[in-house]
Amino acid sequence: MALIHGGDVESFIRDYGREPIDFSANSNPLGLPESAKRAVVDSLETADRYPDPLSRRLREALSEHYKVPVEGIFCAAGAAEVIFRIALAARPKKALLVAPSFAEYEIALRTVDCEVLFHDLEPEMDFVLTGSFLEDISEDIDIIFLCNPNNPTAKLIEPELLLRIADRCREKGVLLVLDECFNGFLDEPDRRSLRRCLPEYPNLVILGAFTKIYGMAGLRLGYCFSSDFELIRSLEKVGQPWCVSSLASAAGIAALGDSEYLKRSLELINIEREFLTIGLERCGVKVIGSSANFIFFLSPVPDLGELCREKGFLIRDCSNYRGLKKGYYRIAVRRREENIKLLEAISEIIAGAK
Amino acid sequence: MALIHGGDVESFIRDYGREPIDFSANSNPLGLPESAKRAVVDSLETADRYPDPLSRRLREALSEHYKVPVEGIFCAAGAAEVIFRIALAARPKKALLVAPSFAEYEIALRTVDCEVLFHDLEPEMDFVLTGSFLEDISEDIDIIFLCNPNNPTAKLIEPELLLRIADRCREKGVLLVLDECFNGFLDEPDRRSLRRCLPEYPNLVILGAFTKIYGMAGLRLGYCFSSDFELIRSLEKVGQPWCVSSLASAAGIAALGDSEYLKRSLELINIEREFLTIGLERCGVKVIGSSANFIFFLSPVPDLGELCREKGFLIRDCSNYRGLKKGYYRIAVRRREENIKLLEAISEIIAGAK
Repeated sequence: MALIHGGDVESFIRDYGREPIDFSANSNPLGLPESAKRAVVDSLETADRYPDPLSRRLREALSEHYKVPVEGIFCAAGAAEVIFRIALAARPKKALLVAPSFAEYEIALRTVDCEVLFHDLEPEMDFVLTGSFLEDISEDIDIIFLCNPNNPTAKLIEPELLLRIADRCREKGVLLVLDECFNGFLDEPDRRSLRRCLPEYPNLVILGAFTKIYGMAGLRLGYCFSSDFELIRSLEKVGQPWCVSSLASAAGIAALGDSEYLKRSLELINIEREFLTIGLERCGVKVIGSSANFIFFLSPVPDLGELCREKGFLIRDCSNYRGLKKGYYRIAVRRREENIKLLEAISEIIAGAK
Repeated sequence: MALIHGGDVESFIRDYGREPIDFSANSNPLGLPESAKRAVVDSLETADRYPDPLSRRLREALSEHYKVPVEGIFCAAGAAEVIFRIALAARPKKALLVAPSFAEYEIALRTVDCEVLFHDLEPEMDFVLTGSFLEDISEDIDIIFLCNPNNPTAKLIEPELLLRIADRCREKGVLLVLDECFNGFLDEPDRRSLRRCLPEYPNLVILGAFTKIYGMAGLRLGYCFSSDFELIRSLEKVGQPWCVSSLASAAGIAALGDSEYLKRSLELINIEREFLTIGLERCGVKVIGSSANFIFFLSPVPDLGELCREKGFLIRDCSNYRGLKKGYYRIAVRRREENIKLLEAISEIIAGAK
């Protein structure tokens, strides 16, 4: 398997015999909440049992938290698994994707031999999604994956445009899969989300994950919402029944109840995102997108990633995204002391390259 | 989702407000090893990181333990996920299955619209697989799933017959997926396994799991071996890259090194399987298969399962397996005090029905 994503800590450890500071994976800098850790430890006593194939307790907790009916929730081992299951269950013939965006949409669609069309975001427009996307939504499209804020560009879709996209998809019979995995990091998550619109849009699936916002990428826990309960049930059938581990389920339920952790996270991230953004610009980097818990930028030194790695930092080289060339990078927002160290390293690298 | 498997503890808790004694899932009665629990707790500090998509450490540990090359190992969230991935990667048109056997083979094959033929095991022969199976292996078959010992019948395939099946599959170009998830519970696991034959049979895939032998069904960890490295790599591509949680990986590595736990497990299970088998026969039950850590029997009281449930015990009603009628049950081997209680309950139920 080619390692095409960020977060490849293991390769660094194998190369250098020590731990890197990882800015390449977009996880909450506070790490797994203590409440979730305790829940995992408590669940070890019954870890010899199969998990509940219906994820009943977890779905009930999600239902209460997000005000979405239990029947409209499917849970799996990360949003990535949900993406593959959607491809398998929907069996689309033709898909429309935005480029650049999260690579797993295309990979999942390829497993069902789906033709994939791309709407290329323009570098000149700082990769913002515009109304021209609406023109690409036609009857022959079966499915669209959209990520908001978009990964890796950190650009948000304007709420009005998003609604027009959902309208047009409903009108044209297109399944709209809206990836809101980073929604929880936003200032106004509810305003930015289409969750409230689910009842009116049976063609809408909203993806979510515990991975990023609750710092549990290693545990694997994601989900989706839809008002099309048939579609939700079809997702259960295209893979194993026990995809959510009992540990991840327990951690997820605990995390949903930990509003204190979330509050602290958002305070920290808002301050540190600003700090990093200003710091990067001072280094001579062009910051293109900065939202949720990550920042997307163009470096004047194209091989910034390798040079950072030599200094012990992993940052996400985005040159393997469709539509991006060498020099585009994404970093996660981390804690102050780590952010200072990264900015120092980047500053040194860029100054040294002059 | 219909709950078609055993181990549905959650439904019992919802119905009765208390915990059942679960004989319906075939897990190690000693539960998750302490070594694995410690490994999970230690891994919580880095649970915010994505797992290694290549599962390098786990595959290295499996390679050393089972003497199989690292390149010939694929890991996933339980053997059930491996089964679905094999169906997706191999895209078979026609499959041959044994009935009764583990239900997920057929369910996984249906996701790729594979036609499924059945070789029905005969009740008159106590569901033993015989040489007549060889006749059903023809060129037009793309894939065969075989479970040894078979679930739910607890019947072993004779080593000579198994080799003849592998030979015939190789000759006819059939992919043979041999599910050895219960192999570790056997007295002579190496003699009973085809692991040693992998290099000569590129058409052979061997399934394994930590689920049962290491009591970690809730953690989700399974794998497969093959000398067809291309096939192994194709399994990586048909699903998400992070299917193995970092907690499961850590637990698995620790468990593989815990030979003391395995020794204690096998001693206990050998004694208790015998104890349960004799006890069941004394109750007037016909024990058909008894191997590894489970027992398959025909009850003179067809609704034994529901009656046991009322008394607080879950046993596996096998009437929803193809080829089995009401009255067939499977139970796991548990600890002495639990086994005594179950035998008392069954004895009472059968005596009461007379």
